[in-house]
Amino acid sequence: MKQLEERIREEGAILSDKVLKVDSFLNHQVDTELALATGKEFARVFAGERITKVLTIEASGIQFAMAAGIALGVPFVYAKKKKAITQSDKVYTAPVHSFTRGETYQVSVDQRFLGPEDRILIVDDFLATGAALVGLVDIVRESGAELVGVGAVIEKSFQEGRGLLEAKGVRIHSLARIVSMKPGEVHFASEEIYSTQN
Amino acid sequence: MKQLEERIREEGAILSDKVLKVDSFLNHQVDTELALATGKEFARVFAGERITKVLTIEASGIQFAMAAGIALGVPFVYAKKKKAITQSDKVYTAPVHSFTRGETYQVSVDQRFLGPEDRILIVDDFLATGAALVGLVDIVRESGAELVGVGAVIEKSFQEGRGLLEAKGVRIHSLARIVSMKPGEVHFASEEIYSTQN
Repeated sequence: MKQLEERIREEGAILSDKVLKVDSFLNHQVDTELALATGKEFARVFAGERITKVLTIEASGIQFAMAAGIALGVPFVYAKKKKAITQSDKVYTAPVHSFTRGETYQVSVDQRFLGPEDRILIVDDFLATGAALVGLVDIVRESGAELVGVGAVIEKSFQEGRGLLEAKGVRIHSLARIVSMKPGEVHFASEEIYSTQN
Repeated sequence: MKQLEERIREEGAILSDKVLKVDSFLNHQVDTELALATGKEFARVFAGERITKVLTIEASGIQFAMAAGIALGVPFVYAKKKKAITQSDKVYTAPVHSFTRGETYQVSVDQRFLGPEDRILIVDDFLATGAALVGLVDIVRESGAELVGVGAVIEKSFQEGRGLLEAKGVRIHSLARIVSMKPGEVHFASEEIYSTQN
C-alpha cells in the first residue's frame, strides 16, 4: 500500500534494526483517514470471503479492526489482555508474550462472540514476532470459526511472525512489508529503498 | 441518543446497581455502525468548536474516538496506560485508578501530540467515577491545549464522575445518561423506564 509506505518513510522513526516507531500516525496518535484506507484495502483483498467478524487484540489493533469492520459492514471483536470484573468465565484464552512490554498476557475472547457460524478476519497493527497473532489464530480455531486470514498493517518480514503463521496454514496479507531496516533506512518488499528521518 | 438507549435496554446486562455490561455491542464486540453513529452525534453536539483532535484512553475509548475523529475530520490520540519501549520520555502524565480492574495506572500522552494550538474533545465509553476522564482533563490542561469538552457514550449519573468534571468547569455531553439502575431495570435521564434482560 503505497500511501502507507510513504507515510512510514516520512514519519516513521527507526530506533534500532528491529524497532520501528509509528506513533505519530498509527498507534498513539492516529490519522483517521489513513486508518480508514487500511480498512478499505483489507476489504478489497479479502473480498468474496463472506467475513462475518473482524478480530483483533487491544489496544493498537482496535482502530484497524474498526476500519476493516466499517469497510466490510461487519462488527469487530477485540481480545482482552486482562480480566475485567464484568467479564464472563466462558472465554477462549491463549497466552501471548509481549516483547515491547516484557510480559506475558493471558488474552481472552468471550465465547458468545466467536463460533462455528463465523468467518473471521484477524487484523493487527504489526506482524513481527507473531506472538499476539498466533494467540488469536489459536482462539479462532478453538472456537470452531473459520479463519479467513490475517491482515497486518505493517509486517517486519525479517522477524519470525510470518513463518509461524505460515506453518499454521494461515493466509497473510500485510499492507507494508519491511524486508530490512536500520536507523535512516527502510527497505520494503516492493523493492524500493527509502531514507527516513532517523 | 435514542438508538443507544434502546440498545442498552435490549442488550445491556445490569450485574449490580453499579455495573452495566455492554460488551456485546460497545466494548468487547463492537457494532461498527452504532460506533460511527456515536461519532456523528458528538460531531453534531460540538459543531462550531473548531476541534483539532480527539483524545481518549486505551482501550475501550478508541472505537469512539475514532468514530468522532472520522465525523470531525481530525486525528485522534489515545493515552497509554503502560510505557512501551518505543515511547519517549517527554510525556504528559496523570494517575488514574481503575475500579473495574483494581489498580492505578500512570497514563501518558506524548508531548508531541498535544499543545497550545490544539482544541481538544475528550471521548470515552463510560463516565462513572470519572477517574480516567479527570486524568485526561488534567493532561490537556497541562499541555496548554484548549479543552472543548468531554463526550461520554454512557454516563452513570449516580456516580461521582459528572460532579468531579463539573467542578473543573468542563462541558459534558453524554449520549445515554443513566439516572439509576438495578438488575432488570434501567432509568435514563430522558425519564423513560425500560426493563432489561437481567
